[in-house]
Parts: sequence; C-alpha cells; structure tokens
Amino acid sequence: MLALPADRIDAIVSLSRRRGFVFPSSEIYGGMRSCWDYGPLGVELKENIKRQWWKACVQSRDDVVGLDSSIILATDVWKASGHLESFVDPLTECQACHKRYRVDQLTEDPAELANLECPGCGRPGSLTEPRPFNGLLRTHLGPVEDADAVHYLRPETAQGIFVNFANVLTTSRRRPPFGIGQVGKSFRNEITPGNFIFRTREFEQMELEFFVEPGTDESWHEYWLAERWAWYLDLGIPEIDLRRYEHPADKLAHYSRRTVDIEYRFGFSAGAGTEWAELEGVANRSDFDLTTHSKNSGNDLSYFDQTTGERWTPYVIEPAAGLTRCVLAFLLAAYSEDTAPNAKGNPEKRTVLRLDPRLAPVKAAVLPLSRNAELSPRAREVAAGLRRHWNVEFDDAGAIGRRYRRQDEIGTPYCVTLDFETLDDGAATVRDRDSMRQERISLDRLTGYLAERLVGC
Amino acid sequence: MLALPADRIDAIVSLSRRRGFVFPSSEIYGGMRSCWDYGPLGVELKENIKRQWWKACVQSRDDVVGLDSSIILATDVWKASGHLESFVDPLTECQACHKRYRVDQLTEDPAELANLECPGCGRPGSLTEPRPFNGLLRTHLGPVEDADAVHYLRPETAQGIFVNFANVLTTSRRRPPFGIGQVGKSFRNEITPGNFIFRTREFEQMELEFFVEPGTDESWHEYWLAERWAWYLDLGIPEIDLRRYEHPADKLAHYSRRTVDIEYRFGFSAGAGTEWAELEGVANRSDFDLTTHSKNSGNDLSYFDQTTGERWTPYVIEPAAGLTRCVLAFLLAAYSEDTAPNAKGNPEKRTVLRLDPRLAPVKAAVLPLSRNAELSPRAREVAAGLRRHWNVEFDDAGAIGRRYRRQDEIGTPYCVTLDFETLDDGAATVRDRDSMRQERISLDRLTGYLAERLVGC
Repeated sequence: MLALPADRIDAIVSLSRRRGFVFPSSEIYGGMRSCWDYGPLGVELKENIKRQWWKACVQSRDDVVGLDSSIILATDVWKASGHLESFVDPLTECQACHKRYRVDQLTEDPAELANLECPGCGRPGSLTEPRPFNGLLRTHLGPVEDADAVHYLRPETAQGIFVNFANVLTTSRRRPPFGIGQVGKSFRNEITPGNFIFRTREFEQMELEFFVEPGTDESWHEYWLAERWAWYLDLGIPEIDLRRYEHPADKLAHYSRRTVDIEYRFGFSAGAGTEWAELEGVANRSDFDLTTHSKNSGNDLSYFDQTTGERWTPYVIEPAAGLTRCVLAFLLAAYSEDTAPNAKGNPEKRTVLRLDPRLAPVKAAVLPLSRNAELSPRAREVAAGLRRHWNVEFDDAGAIGRRYRRQDEIGTPYCVTLDFETLDDGAATVRDRDSMRQERISLDRLTGYLAERLVGC
Repeated sequence: MLALPADRIDAIVSLSRRRGFVFPSSEIYGGMRSCWDYGPLGVELKENIKRQWWKACVQSRDDVVGLDSSIILATDVWKASGHLESFVDPLTECQACHKRYRVDQLTEDPAELANLECPGCGRPGSLTEPRPFNGLLRTHLGPVEDADAVHYLRPETAQGIFVNFANVLTTSRRRPPFGIGQVGKSFRNEITPGNFIFRTREFEQMELEFFVEPGTDESWHEYWLAERWAWYLDLGIPEIDLRRYEHPADKLAHYSRRTVDIEYRFGFSAGAGTEWAELEGVANRSDFDLTTHSKNSGNDLSYFDQTTGERWTPYVIEPAAGLTRCVLAFLLAAYSEDTAPNAKGNPEKRTVLRLDPRLAPVKAAVLPLSRNAELSPRAREVAAGLRRHWNVEFDDAGAIGRRYRRQDEIGTPYCVTLDFETLDDGAATVRDRDSMRQERISLDRLTGYLAERLVGC
C-alpha cells in the first residue's frame, strides 16, 4: 500500500469538489466560508449515514421513537434552556479596524488583551475588554419587527425533544427507559467556522434523548457510550482512530453531570491544537432540562411510575452526533490509495474510497465494454432493473480501466461489466471494489447476487 | 360506509394530535400559530413520502441526480433571483392599533383602504397606504451585525439548484435533458399562516429542476405534469380530488412562461374561497434563472451541445411539490370511517387510515392475544425479527379488538396476532387492515409473506 498523502483532508476536499460530494455554497458568487452544498454523491452519502443512524437508534429498537420538531421554536424555550443567557463567547473588538475576535483564541488571560497587537491591522493596544456575544441566529416572524417578533434558529435539536416529552410519552404509550431520536439542521453563529465541513454555521445533527429513572443514569450512560462506539466501528471507522475524551468535572456545561466525547482523529488542528476532534458528545444531562421546562412552562414534566407509585423527573442520557461531521469522518476513514494494474499490466496508483456498502452513494455501476448498438441498450436495461432496488450508475464513456478507477474513487462496491460474450451467454462480470476480483454472473441471478452482498443497504 | 365527518380537517387535526402525527410546536409554552412538530408517526409518514418522491424523481431515473444545498445562501443569489425586490406583499397598517394586514385580503381596490374600518380595533379611516413587505426571513451571520452580515433563509430550494448547475453538470457528466432534485426546508414570512400544516412559515419542499433544450420545453412541461399527476394517483390520491389549475397568462410570475398547479380538494377555503388548493406547481421557468445568474455572477451558465455545435441556455421545467402539504393531503385522502364487528359481533364505527403501505408509518403490529409468560416474549421476538426490515409496533395492552382499532386508525396495513395455538403450531394470524380478512401464516414464512405485500416499502 502506498503512503497516504501528507494531508488527507486536502485530498478529500479536492475529491469532494471534483466528483460532486461537496461544493462550496454559492460558489459562482464567490462562495461562503461557512456553508457547503452536498452534490449528487454527497447527498446520497449523507442520507445513507442518517438512515443507518435512524435504523440503529430508532427503528430497530422498541424503546426509541422518532420526532421532527421545527427549527424555529418559541423564544421561551431558549430562555428556559439557558441559551439566551449562556450560549455566549467573549469577543474583543479592535477599535482601529473594528474586526472582532474570540478572546480565548488570542490569549488565555483576558487581562493580557490590552497588551496585544490586533491580528488584523497590527495596531497594538487597540483591543477592547471582552464582551459577550450570543451564538444564536436571530430572525423576525410576522409583519411587525418588534420585540415579540424576535425568534431564534435552534442551535441544537435537543430542546425540540424536551418540550415534546409529555406529548410523545402520552401518544406513543412508552415509559422510561425510553428515548426520542431526531435528525435535523441546527444553526450556530460560529465566529471561526472552518476545516471544510467540520465547523459550519449551518449543520446537521443526529440526537437521541434517552429518558431513564434517576439512579440508573450512570449505567445507561455507559451503555450508550458503548452502543455509539460500536456503531462507528460497525460502519468502518478504525478503532485506532477513535478515543474517549472525558470532560473535566470543573469544565462541564451547566446542564451536565458527566460528558464523554467520542473523538475521531480528523488530522487537523480543530480543537486545542490536537489532531483529534469531537465526533459525538454523550452527556448525562441529569434532570436539568425537564425540570427547567416544568418550572418555566408551568407544565409538570415529571413521570408517575405506576408500578412503584413513585413520581420522579427522568434523567436524560444524550448521544448527540454531528451528521455533517460524520460525512467527513467516513470519507477520511474510507480514503485510501493502492495500486492496480493498468492496461499494459503495469502497476498504477489507484484512489479508492473503502466505504461500507451501506454508506456508499452508488451501490453498483453498469458498464458496457464498448458503445455498441446491441451492448449499450442491453446494459441500460440491466441498470434500469437494478435501479429499482439501489442507486446505480450507468457509464459507457472511455476505457474500461478508467471507468473502474472512477467508480473506485467514489466507493462503488460493485462494477457490472457487459462484454460481447454477454450477448451469447447472458452473463456479466462483477468486479469487487476492494479485492478487484472478478466473477462471471448470469444476468438473471445478478439482482440476487448483489442483494446478498448489499444487505442492509 | 358511513358519511364522513362534516369537517374532515378537524378529524385529521384531532387524530394527528391524539396519535402523535403532528403536535403544535412549543405547545407547553402556549404553542406557535405558524409552526408544527412531527411526532413519532408523523416523522415516519413524512419520511416515507419524501422517500417515494426521491425514488420516483431521482433514484430510479438515469436523467436526474440529487442535491442538498444550504438554507442560507449568499445574498447575491436573492438579488439576482429577484426575491429581494419582488418577493413582496403590499401591507397596510392601522395607525391606531398598529396591526398590519395584507391589502388583498381587505379589498380588491387599494383606493378603498382609506374608507375601511380596521379589522382589529374597528377605527375607521386609520389604514395607511399599501407598503411593500418582503417575505424573506432575515438573519445576521458573523460577529458584526452590519450590512455585510445580513443573510436570508431560502424561500425555495430552487435557487440552490440553479447556482450549482455548472458544478453538477461537470461532476455528474450529465447533459440536457437532465434534472436536479432536492428536498429540504424553506422559510417564508407568511402574514397569515393557517389551515393546520397547509400554510406555515417553516415548511418542506420537494423540487425538481429539469433542464431542457429550448423548443422542447413545452412537451417536457406536459411530460412532467403527467408524471407528477400519476405519482399522486399511484400513492392513493383519488383522481376526483385532483385538478389542474392553469395560471392566467397575465398573472404569471416574472420568471414563468407557463405554470400549471396540481390542486387537491383539501376542503377548506385556503385560496380564494374555494375548497381546492395548490399541492404542487409545475412551471416552465424558461431560461430566466440560468440567464440571470450568468449575468449577475459573471459565470456563463449556457450549455455547449457538442453534437450540434450549438450553444444555448437550457429552459427549466420545475415540478415543485410541498412535502408538508403532501402529508396533509395523504392523511385527508386516507381518512375513512366504516364499521367493524365489536366483541359481541355488533357493528361498531371504525376509523381507518387507508394509507398506501409504502406511506404507512408502521408496516405491521405484533399483538400477543394476552399478556402471558410464554406468549409475550415469543411475540417480542417476532417483532424484533420484523423490525430488521420495517418499522414495527408491539402492543400487548387491552382487548384485541381495541388494539386492532388503534392500528387501523394509524394506517398499519398488517396486524400479526399470536394466540395460544401459536405455541403449538408455530403460526400466527395476519389481519389485513382494509378487508379485515385474517389468514393463518407459519411464523417462519411471516417475513416472506409480508415482504410480498410490502413491495417498495
């Protein structure tokens, strides 16, 4: 195996752009630093990750149901959750050039600010005292832009789950331990978005709020840490590139009793100058959320346990994953380079995305050996048949070796090649992406052959 | 069959709330008139509709690819598209109570305004001249709230497609006629949201932009009208409740050459006092979008046809459906009442959602005849096995007749009942939702039996 490119991120950004996984948003107008669009392959990959999460965390479980709450919630929700008050970063502004900076990115000691030079214009002594800056995106609803019209875009999907706790409990007739899962967009006014799709102002989350009896919370916390860890391994993240990060007790968020991040070795300096960064946070939120919403809304969100005759407010274990971060992690983990023989039998560099077939955007490519009045229509028919089950590409342009490379590069697990013998024997050659082994399969067995190998897709 | 309730919408709103399809958003804080949350059943129904659209319009076609562009685009996009200038409603404000109203909802002749009473406070002669009000939701990105920081939430997903036209064309190696499909949230600052989930400020769209050679646009327009019409029929909307509405030539939007709406008989007065309202608009947008973005961005978005050696700007046919409106339409179309025998054999009213199995949120329910140390665990096993393929409920609470009613009411196509004979013969009774016919099926054939009947789910 060849050595990986020095900067795997650069290779992924370039591949994403070139093959249609991820485009800079509004690129023809110069692009936006903080937003990205998912192209034809990216939207399939993202959807597949989401579907695997939904299957594992919601659909396959008797003790979890789904929800899809709105992005704009009542402002009272953010008052109660503490986001209006404490979802803030201290910023400093240069009095000369009026650029703003996060204080913690300039210095560890805010008292030092007065002695620093502005990183923008270089003027010394121009930075103001730190001032709080709220990370919520604000908008106005309705025809009058007064205080009542102010609303916020959610910075997390979780609060939409908490305020629906009683509704879901009643209508789904579940009782703790049980969970509510949700996938959706959230928005944060990040001061310093960056690292491709790792930190963006618009992003997608996959959040599960799992409600348990107090006293059982610590073991459920470990349970969900193990479940989520296993999910990443199952879908192809190497264990050596995952680690747990235990938040120090004195730095926990105000709602948290304990938080453990599952970190992935992204390879850039996203956090505090390390190559590791958060993929998912698994928090024990205690009864903070249900208690605070009970108090602020006047609706009692405690639970009456009929078997014991006791009333308690459930504790919440929250595995909160970043869907868009997962896209990046699965791309990085899948990226590899090896060699394959070229047309003359000589070894040639090959880029291959070793994505789990469940995540691969295209499950199979149908390739007629050449453009031909008989072969091409037959191949199109085969592709149309497979398309009833999976996302399938048809490609008849260029040398067959180049077409294999194109499919390898986007992670297509199987290539189905129709050649001139196909017209006689009704069979095709199926090539496996990873082993590059080829097998001759009768076309009437093809769907079954692929179905066995694409289980869970 | 019994007569339907006088107000079918009320029946659906009540059923949605009671069974967990749709909840008022932020309900514990008093709710928000314009936002709704999708509960455990609603999120599955909505996802199933989306998946059927994606299958029909994107995945099963060789000539359409998908996209997922961001909600917040560069402001230049909305300048070019005309939304900043012309996405406006004329409003009038009462100078006494300061409430605002859409002029067209008060009078057909704006000159009459001065003579009207304010619908709010009743004061005559207090309404101002009409003033334009922009329907875009505005926010600020970044740490400084200056003019450069102003951004808008998209009012349609379409523009995200147009600005990615060149990127998709190149990376997916398609050529016209071909399309780009997208499903996602859009936001409009509606003055008068209402009619449950029909008109909301936050909503979801399923949009396809299909790029064709000028001159072929009219026939492609008819093609897509027919395709989209057939999609609704295929998924269970009765043809008698669909109609075409041809926009009069003098009232077309500025970008449109011709627009035909597919309307559904919702039964409320959503539009101009009729019970019909828009489900999907199918527009011939001409080359307006690509031309205007070429001009404004300085990037040529025309297409060079290598076979003819000609260069032209594609015309766009746009079938734009409302996903959240579809949820309402499919619920309304599925709602029915008939009679079923009760425990004593007497006819009793039954509410049943006759949803197409592909749309039904729950595909099968597993019901042990009674709570029993042998039967319940066996039934849970069966449910767990089926859950590997479909969304499946387990229910062991209450009389079996009541449990059937609960499943009928949410549209579950099949109920699998395990009784005491099951422990001997290893078989269960499968009941069909619509015919209420029951069939004895061996448990080891159960998955296959259901798979045959749940094709495409």
